[in-house]
Amino acid sequence: MYCLLKFAPLFLAVSVCHGWLFGDFVGKQKELNGEISLWPLPQKFQSSAVAFKLSPASFQIVHAKESSAGPSCSLLENAFRRYFEYMFGDLKKHEKSRKKVFDSDLVELKVWITSTDPECDGFPSLQTDESYQLSVDEPSAVLKAANVWGALRGLETFSQLVYEDYYGVNNINKTDISDFPRFAHRGILLDSSRHFLPLKVILANLEAMAMNKFNVFHWHIVDDQSFPYMSRTFPELSQKGAYHPFTHVYTPSDVKMVIEFARMRGIRVIPEFDTPGHTQSWGYGIKDLLTPCFSGSTPSGTFGPVNPILNSSYEFMAQFFKEISMVFPDAYIHLGGDEVDFNCWKSNPDVQKFMKQQGFGTDYSKLESFYIQRLLDIVAATKKGYMVWQEVFDNGVKLKDDTVVEVWMGNKMEEELQNVTGAGFTTILSAPWYLDYISYGQDWQRYYKVEPLNFPGTDAQKKLVIGGEACLWGEYVDATNLTPRLWPRASAVAERLWSDKSVTDIRNAYNRLVQHRCRMVKRGIPAEPLFVGHCRHEYKGL
Amino acid sequence: MYCLLKFAPLFLAVSVCHGWLFGDFVGKQKELNGEISLWPLPQKFQSSAVAFKLSPASFQIVHAKESSAGPSCSLLENAFRRYFEYMFGDLKKHEKSRKKVFDSDLVELKVWITSTDPECDGFPSLQTDESYQLSVDEPSAVLKAANVWGALRGLETFSQLVYEDYYGVNNINKTDISDFPRFAHRGILLDSSRHFLPLKVILANLEAMAMNKFNVFHWHIVDDQSFPYMSRTFPELSQKGAYHPFTHVYTPSDVKMVIEFARMRGIRVIPEFDTPGHTQSWGYGIKDLLTPCFSGSTPSGTFGPVNPILNSSYEFMAQFFKEISMVFPDAYIHLGGDEVDFNCWKSNPDVQKFMKQQGFGTDYSKLESFYIQRLLDIVAATKKGYMVWQEVFDNGVKLKDDTVVEVWMGNKMEEELQNVTGAGFTTILSAPWYLDYISYGQDWQRYYKVEPLNFPGTDAQKKLVIGGEACLWGEYVDATNLTPRLWPRASAVAERLWSDKSVTDIRNAYNRLVQHRCRMVKRGIPAEPLFVGHCRHEYKGL
Repeated sequence: MYCLLKFAPLFLAVSVCHGWLFGDFVGKQKELNGEISLWPLPQKFQSSAVAFKLSPASFQIVHAKESSAGPSCSLLENAFRRYFEYMFGDLKKHEKSRKKVFDSDLVELKVWITSTDPECDGFPSLQTDESYQLSVDEPSAVLKAANVWGALRGLETFSQLVYEDYYGVNNINKTDISDFPRFAHRGILLDSSRHFLPLKVILANLEAMAMNKFNVFHWHIVDDQSFPYMSRTFPELSQKGAYHPFTHVYTPSDVKMVIEFARMRGIRVIPEFDTPGHTQSWGYGIKDLLTPCFSGSTPSGTFGPVNPILNSSYEFMAQFFKEISMVFPDAYIHLGGDEVDFNCWKSNPDVQKFMKQQGFGTDYSKLESFYIQRLLDIVAATKKGYMVWQEVFDNGVKLKDDTVVEVWMGNKMEEELQNVTGAGFTTILSAPWYLDYISYGQDWQRYYKVEPLNFPGTDAQKKLVIGGEACLWGEYVDATNLTPRLWPRASAVAERLWSDKSVTDIRNAYNRLVQHRCRMVKRGIPAEPLFVGHCRHEYKGL
Repeated sequence: MYCLLKFAPLFLAVSVCHGWLFGDFVGKQKELNGEISLWPLPQKFQSSAVAFKLSPASFQIVHAKESSAGPSCSLLENAFRRYFEYMFGDLKKHEKSRKKVFDSDLVELKVWITSTDPECDGFPSLQTDESYQLSVDEPSAVLKAANVWGALRGLETFSQLVYEDYYGVNNINKTDISDFPRFAHRGILLDSSRHFLPLKVILANLEAMAMNKFNVFHWHIVDDQSFPYMSRTFPELSQKGAYHPFTHVYTPSDVKMVIEFARMRGIRVIPEFDTPGHTQSWGYGIKDLLTPCFSGSTPSGTFGPVNPILNSSYEFMAQFFKEISMVFPDAYIHLGGDEVDFNCWKSNPDVQKFMKQQGFGTDYSKLESFYIQRLLDIVAATKKGYMVWQEVFDNGVKLKDDTVVEVWMGNKMEEELQNVTGAGFTTILSAPWYLDYISYGQDWQRYYKVEPLNFPGTDAQKKLVIGGEACLWGEYVDATNLTPRLWPRASAVAERLWSDKSVTDIRNAYNRLVQHRCRMVKRGIPAEPLFVGHCRHEYKGL
């Protein structure tokens, strides 16, 4: 089943002609990988059948003369090299050749940063402008963006336009693209507590994120099961709370490397230190941090959530989050606040007494809010913004205006979005995208079909939905299986959060995604297959 | 949650003391990997708390003086080196050291092959005796087996007895084991047609199979989607039917390598060439092999199953299976015979005429049987036995006495086992073990709980159940995700097919399997986690 690309100078013109999507038999998908296959689909796209060749001997990515960025912008210099390698693979860049350049060659991509500050040494943020314009024409292609962050997105798109022809030569068609994301927050949550994730697994997934234009790494770094974050202020947290104090921890330099590796790809790193629940592993290192549970009138020897009635708990949190606010450059920290189990608090006589003193009656959600309120104030004092899971909002905690509420419960999701935005808070959606819940078949289609703004609310409310996250919780994944389980399933979420609302054709998406996953494989990411078929370049790892 | 191993000189004494199995929170599973964890559990097992140390400088695996095998037995010599490396990893075997050997050291494992022909250059078969006796005591351990195949199983067990102590030193406890498999056929089905599986993926999984005492690689090598087997007699089959004629084929030397790599590990390779259905990819290379389908009175341009009414089809099969019977040394070939779609046959006027001539009425299963009967006779003439999917039996085809019928349909599985064995045929079970059907959570427990003999029938009938197979069909797996999806889920099947019927304690199995999967990871197999926790040696690949 082989058919030629149909190029048409139309908005959203892409290849839509091979493969059967829904049948049991997809047939002999031959030589499909040479077609272009943009993912996520740009907002505005025009392409023609005129094709240019790219030679590794002559093609180069350069700073435009007019650009505010130059060779000293190492973020761009690195990106130029990375994308050159993606496009030409093992082919070495020859010494500047004197070879005749043919009229049909594309000799360069000029990258033109238009604003006075290209932000080469900055960090991406929620307010970052990621838009770019890309024009491919002879003899030069031009990529125009306000800053390096838009340029990174445009470089990815440029590299996706390049395809191998029948002879294995790289080609690119005359193209005009004007692109920008639909949502500002496009995240992946990884959980390094249920299983420790070696550094290189995190870095590989940051690479894959950039290939899909994700821009937030939500690092659920610690939880009940282990505390791999090595704190400078409280080293005993990981010494006693990690699976192993040497082999299963993230040192300060590891964390720095993750942040820098992400920055180079336009990705924010938002760490989550979830309290007062999900904190069993904190208790090994910090005496009296957790609530002692009681069995009748005697301590049972087990511990519950953070002890909300002791001043020492808040003193610890103040010191701890002061460190976190300095280690992580992003303007936001995720403070968790989900799934607090009240049983232990209820069993503890001192907590009972405190409840009475405070006039909370038997409503332990009031105690939870009491804790969270003090924690939020502590963190606000570090000048950071915070993200929280939806329970914190549901319990009526007073939140800063810039708080981002994360909606994760599948039950009554639309109602929650309505309520959160109705109260004027920004929100991100992860409920439909819990990728740890695997099932047989093409579940990416389910993720793809979600429309985040499909809830009752005003235009102003809809504007408060700033994005979403694909979450791969760690109970069943580690270095052995995380990457193929995440990709290309998360790619479905990537397109939903980047492309126009109207981009919903599942057959067209299938055809592009098949090729996008082969492109990830070619770049060394073990992205699993969508269905039967093959890649021209199969995965070279194990 | 750490507890010491409880050794007891009791039958089936193993560690059963750490972790919570069913809760959401397994706690801090610390330092569990040093405990012994046999998988699959041996039939008879006695162990004591007396421990010996193994030094890479002095320990060796040698042929016993009394053994009928010696240094010329390259199968064993290879296995000795392989298991030495599994136990000592990167530690180089020093030159024979003069270092004092301590009394508490185990200095050697003597391998004693007792029968006059050790079968060093032979192939394992359905009749192979895989039993072995293993005695670990100072200063030597002794592994006794009738032939090399039992010795391979015993070497795996010996290596599983070795554990790292607190100082990282290899220890082994005084132990006596007498072991043999409950079922003779313990298989893994891999499908290299829906996705091409690079050679190294197949080899890695053969290694993992040996770690789990599987002894049959059921190679579903071709199917509708692609024909990667390069035939010497009909090279056009893969030239036109493979995804790519160079990069996505198994050359004769690739096939030889798979067979030899498997033989070195006591694994039979049974190829499946499924006909008359599942043959779309055959049709590209062989003119007139498939039935032309009709749309009314004109050919529709599509093709159905093998054309059963042409002599040329049978002439082709005779030549083709003559080659197969020579390329694959095993006594059995799997001939498929499942899921034949009658629509194309029904549409074809020549087939309709043939049906009338033969007096088949409109019962196309009679035509199917007609084809299969002739095929079986063709294959029987090559002196090979055959395996078939259950439909062939269900349709009343006359089968050779030694035919193995594979029961794969979940619906009425017990009834089918009863019928097949009632008719006197040997059978293997794969219905409960279709590992391509993934789901959230610990589905290995479902595979583990299957009791293959749990169907109504006489003792004689039960004896005809010679084993089973874990099947990982290829629609959704390729080199990127196959290995972690197969292991350790297939390990559950491995224990069910090897160990005694009474070995059903799921908590005990969980504790051993957690460690067994870490052992596979340490040996380079990306076996995925069962649940939260960690391995001392995490996976080093991506």
